[in-house]
Amino acid sequence: MASLLVDPAMRVFAICAGILVLKMLLTANLTGILRTSRRVFASPEDYRFFGAEPVAQPDEQIERIRRAHRNDLENILPFLVIGFLYAMTGPSYTVAWWLFVSFTVARLLHTAVYIAGLQPWRTVFFGIGSIALYAMTLIVVVRLI
Amino acid sequence: MASLLVDPAMRVFAICAGILVLKMLLTANLTGILRTSRRVFASPEDYRFFGAEPVAQPDEQIERIRRAHRNDLENILPFLVIGFLYAMTGPSYTVAWWLFVSFTVARLLHTAVYIAGLQPWRTVFFGIGSIALYAMTLIVVVRLI
Amino acid sequence: MASLLVDPAMRVFAICAGILVLKMLLTANLTGILRTSRRVFASPEDYRFFGAEPVAQPDEQIERIRRAHRNDLENILPFLVIGFLYAMTGPSYTVAWWLFVSFTVARLLHTAVYIAGLQPWRTVFFGIGSIALYAMTLIVVVRLI
Repeated sequence: MASLLVDPAMRVFAICAGILVLKMLLTANLTGILRTSRRVFASPEDYRFFGAEPVAQPDEQIERIRRAHRNDLENILPFLVIGFLYAMTGPSYTVAWWLFVSFTVARLLHTAVYIAGLQPWRTVFFGIGSIALYAMTLIVVVRLI
Repeated sequence: MASLLVDPAMRVFAICAGILVLKMLLTANLTGILRTSRRVFASPEDYRFFGAEPVAQPDEQIERIRRAHRNDLENILPFLVIGFLYAMTGPSYTVAWWLFVSFTVARLLHTAVYIAGLQPWRTVFFGIGSIALYAMTLIVVVRLI
Repeated sequence: MASLLVDPAMRVFAICAGILVLKMLLTANLTGILRTSRRVFASPEDYRFFGAEPVAQPDEQIERIRRAHRNDLENILPFLVIGFLYAMTGPSYTVAWWLFVSFTVARLLHTAVYIAGLQPWRTVFFGIGSIALYAMTLIVVVRLI
């Protein structure tokens, strides 16, 4: 294994990164499953392929999952690089562990409460993830300038 | 060159990452070319700048390319980090080569058949890319836990 | 600090990556602030939580910021990985500095002129960022093939 992954903070980062990407892949699969079972598609060839009548109105549950997924693109994807750079700055293991794990747990719960439509919890978990990501990003910039 | 890129699996990963980002940049350019030639824009200042009459209805061909592009954001961008972490776990070169190349070819074909509107091929190539990405992600998590 | 970050080109990359992710996080916050102050939300539970009347029409200023943000997903996120791989190929420090800084400045200005609705400046700064990203990606592929 490459020496980078031997570092304990990098190891926690890589596990968190993997868990969050699995979550994103499952979110994509959930969209696909709902599209097929509800017969609401984005492209005309899908209606033809499934022999379904085109639906003019988007399905609210599917759009909700797509909003959760886009929110992941805006937050989890930057984390996948910033978390790595942060782990390379040689942070305290305890601080790194807390930042990685709180970001990961907050983003898992964000998807769950987004799909369930629970406010203010969606904003709370978005906020926790956001604060962790701001903290890591600021540490990277400040330590390297 | 940094020692990481000397590793053969990492080298294949970096070439695949580059090819896929080139593909994404070309997809963005295609959207821009179609927007300009068909005079269908997303912002009012673009209509003013090109002296074109604002169009209320989005253009189906442009929206199709934007859907393909969003699907890239959801799949290629996570790969750019997971593929790197996977290459760092010291995988078998043969397995890594197959996972990287099948993901890359599947994603190139996914865009082609998405733009051409060919089903079930779009789902087939999405599925192949998805399986390769699931496999790499699971290997990263399992090897590091 | 991990040896990778000791490399001067990698250091400039990491600072640019941090600045661009801060910019993206601020863009997300701006969307949230506007949604709350204008009471235009994406989900029904938000209207209930804020006791606001659901609005059928999306807010043009909010949609504009979301378009700028999506453009970031399409450009900044690939840069976060390609810039890293490019820095690992052992580039000339001067060339790397120019590519990283021109990409970063162009993307900061892109958001500013997108929000202000200024054409042709939005296209100009998109173009500069795009050329820098094409250049880095091509260098990675050509140097590794």
